[in-house]
Amino acid sequence: MGTSAQTLNKSQITNEFKLLQDSICHQLEVADGLGKFREDVWERPLGGGGRSRVIEGQIIEKGGVNFSAVHGEMADEIANKLEMRGGEFYATGVSIVLHPVNPLVPIIHMNVRYFEMQEHDAPKGQIISWFGGGIDLTPHYIDDADAQYFHAQLKKVCDFHHSDYYVQHKAWADNYFYLPHRQETRGIGGIFFDRLSAQNGVSTEQQFRYVMDVGYAFAPIYTYFMRKNHALPYREQEKKWQLLRRGRYVEFNLVWDRGTKFGLQTEGRTESILMSMPPQANWIYDYQPTEGSKEAITLSKLKKGINWLEKQTNPVG
Amino acid sequence: MGTSAQTLNKSQITNEFKLLQDSICHQLEVADGLGKFREDVWERPLGGGGRSRVIEGQIIEKGGVNFSAVHGEMADEIANKLEMRGGEFYATGVSIVLHPVNPLVPIIHMNVRYFEMQEHDAPKGQIISWFGGGIDLTPHYIDDADAQYFHAQLKKVCDFHHSDYYVQHKAWADNYFYLPHRQETRGIGGIFFDRLSAQNGVSTEQQFRYVMDVGYAFAPIYTYFMRKNHALPYREQEKKWQLLRRGRYVEFNLVWDRGTKFGLQTEGRTESILMSMPPQANWIYDYQPTEGSKEAITLSKLKKGINWLEKQTNPVG
Repeated sequence: MGTSAQTLNKSQITNEFKLLQDSICHQLEVADGLGKFREDVWERPLGGGGRSRVIEGQIIEKGGVNFSAVHGEMADEIANKLEMRGGEFYATGVSIVLHPVNPLVPIIHMNVRYFEMQEHDAPKGQIISWFGGGIDLTPHYIDDADAQYFHAQLKKVCDFHHSDYYVQHKAWADNYFYLPHRQETRGIGGIFFDRLSAQNGVSTEQQFRYVMDVGYAFAPIYTYFMRKNHALPYREQEKKWQLLRRGRYVEFNLVWDRGTKFGLQTEGRTESILMSMPPQANWIYDYQPTEGSKEAITLSKLKKGINWLEKQTNPVG
Repeated sequence: MGTSAQTLNKSQITNEFKLLQDSICHQLEVADGLGKFREDVWERPLGGGGRSRVIEGQIIEKGGVNFSAVHGEMADEIANKLEMRGGEFYATGVSIVLHPVNPLVPIIHMNVRYFEMQEHDAPKGQIISWFGGGIDLTPHYIDDADAQYFHAQLKKVCDFHHSDYYVQHKAWADNYFYLPHRQETRGIGGIFFDRLSAQNGVSTEQQFRYVMDVGYAFAPIYTYFMRKNHALPYREQEKKWQLLRRGRYVEFNLVWDRGTKFGLQTEGRTESILMSMPPQANWIYDYQPTEGSKEAITLSKLKKGINWLEKQTNPVG
């Protein structure tokens, strides 16, 4: 957590996030080939607002790409939960969840965010600020080569900025995207980081470049999976499994995801927060996939600590 | 909360709850006409267990009737959240959620429960104990006559036991079954109560009779709606709306319901806790029903404090 005066300007960061949203929406529309984003511009009564964009396409069944920049007063009570004292905050970010039609195309989530706070009792200009973000993938069926590709792309982005980032932020994603009540990871993870600021010789500007590189890595990675897998044939069983896995996605987001919970409990804009919900999710009591099935193999790999960059050994069914 | 030595025996309560589960399952099977309950008997590694029963019928699309009786050590940390100190606890109850096929049949929830605790630092035999429970109804479309019937049945049960119960426990349900992020009640409420024990001249035995009467009121009330509405024709729009309302049901249970959250965070049996999930739920970004439509009228009535016993005035569309 940095407490230095800012050299980077928050409007500069905000503008770059808007451009990122534009770029991602454009690339997703091109890859989808049919769906067009619909935009809702909204204002937050207490300060700031956002641009929520949703798509219903031929490859992406339901997707949201949300930009927001909100500000105002943060009460001590809430600030304390974030290990700060009350003050004037500013928060901006881009947040994405895409649910594809085809169960062989993975669900993806990306978020980049910037937060700053002028605590009331801190000297004026002594601002706390940080970046957060990440990309994680939730395949309905885990394909080892796809998982390897995904993690290799993330590692490339990380390595360019810091040799520790991939290992650290990959582990962070494993721990964050985890459903304790299912003892399952949400998917194959990815990278996740929070409260990044100038530290260990890395400047705020360098952290910002890392965050933006993560943001710009998103569309090429996901459109690769869209193009490669959207036309693959799938069976009824695979659609059924997709709907059950979406149920797990709902469980994670509503029960465990800190961002979602925080947003819903602090009167955020509900429709923008819940853009992450799938178009349809199913639940079957105590559903157990057949031993050795593709579904069972996927379940067996929803574990923390797997090195996806290495060749995986499939369990014998 | 009572701290008197028990005259009622916990095994007596437990047995009555089991018989209640049997009776309800039987009545639901008869009313459904096709579905049969499948039972899973399970043990809790740390003490106790349960009988989870699920049905997939021709009227009830997915329903769960769960009995459990669990016991063991409760750590200070968790006990403190319940305003107690750590000790040996015992908890038993019956919990039900039914999702019907036909959108004109309402979703229903019922729960009766008993809890006792021997705090480690309290004199042996000085037991804290209470009852909790309630029934609430979530119609996909609010029918005023059905709502009136439902609340009249509950009032009858309440009035038999205490003249204050209906008003108090109806208000409690309005407040409990509420989604702040939607500014909607979950449905038309019903009754909800917690921590009932001997007080104001009402004995523990009398509270127990009240709880059991609530439990036995459940099946006649719900089978009345099943029989009356299951064969009514419905259109695609009504099915679509049902799936969206089930989405709200998921949101309430996973984000706000204290029982669900507590269960998932304290390693309860996940499949039994999540028996309340619908077979299918849908989300559409920012769905707004047409002004004056049946859907809009239902939304306008998802408010706290409505006296359902009185004739409702419909808003002009």
